[in-house]
Amino acid sequence: MSEGLKDQLRECGALKYGSFTLASGIESPYYIDIKKASTDPAVLREIARQLASMMRREGIGCDRLAGVVLGSIPLVVALSLETGIPYVMVRKERKSYGTGNEIEGAFEAGERVLVVEDVITSARSAADAVEILRGDGAVVKDILAVVDREEGGRRLLEPMGLELHPLMTSQQLLED
Amino acid sequence: MSEGLKDQLRECGALKYGSFTLASGIESPYYIDIKKASTDPAVLREIARQLASMMRREGIGCDRLAGVVLGSIPLVVALSLETGIPYVMVRKERKSYGTGNEIEGAFEAGERVLVVEDVITSARSAADAVEILRGDGAVVKDILAVVDREEGGRRLLEPMGLELHPLMTSQQLLED
Repeated sequence: MSEGLKDQLRECGALKYGSFTLASGIESPYYIDIKKASTDPAVLREIARQLASMMRREGIGCDRLAGVVLGSIPLVVALSLETGIPYVMVRKERKSYGTGNEIEGAFEAGERVLVVEDVITSARSAADAVEILRGDGAVVKDILAVVDREEGGRRLLEPMGLELHPLMTSQQLLED
Repeated sequence: MSEGLKDQLRECGALKYGSFTLASGIESPYYIDIKKASTDPAVLREIARQLASMMRREGIGCDRLAGVVLGSIPLVVALSLETGIPYVMVRKERKSYGTGNEIEGAFEAGERVLVVEDVITSARSAADAVEILRGDGAVVKDILAVVDREEGGRRLLEPMGLELHPLMTSQQLLED
């Protein structure tokens, strides 16, 4: 884990203490706001560099990246610009106008797609995205994340044949 | 207007012919899918370079960029990485969990915020975003767009004190 990125995340206010109800329904005394952090281009560029470096180090190959609306879209866009790999955006709800796609962007059946997430808690959001992608013929084996809160994510993902690759755990982000 | 970008947009399938109901409710025989185009990092980088170049050429200054969910988020992220200017994301609907923000990312009242859009039709989406941003104290004077369909956008924006700066019109994109 990079101490530099941890410091950047803490300094830009990505870690908030209070009383939060997470997307998973879990109540938490802290919230990790990677969306806010990624609105600073210096932090976003560093996250993208670290994710690209982890892909090289761990030999994670793919034909295409995928981000889940909305939190991981800035991450997947920055990682796409960093690596030159195209991406798709997965919506959790269909829109009613225009092309009406659940997946924005195109891929061929059989392509290996790498899902990028901001924060993994229960991993429900990532699992839903993988199901949508697999339903359209994508081969998905790996999930990249900035932070793993270690609250059941791996337990949900492993039986689905998915390996989680976080840059850091929330424990690492929280500790001094 | 850049012929290179026009060719890139057409080659990557951003221009679709058929029968479409646009977000504005207008029926159209063509759809300009900048979201799809921007999933190709080469096209996205070129859009960001052209927008940055237009900002310099026309002297459009700002403290912060703003993108509207979802179509212009890849554009605002790429333009932020290109220029080093931070950005915010404006949602059209509030989410019910986490921080519950309508605007993701922070700005101070009085900051000059530049709104980035993919395609301007009636400009209703851009106008809504400007109202949300102004409601939080942002000073908004300019809208950047990739394509202006010239279907009433300027008529809506000008009385709001907003100047529209498109890279091209749909007429320019459509013509050989």
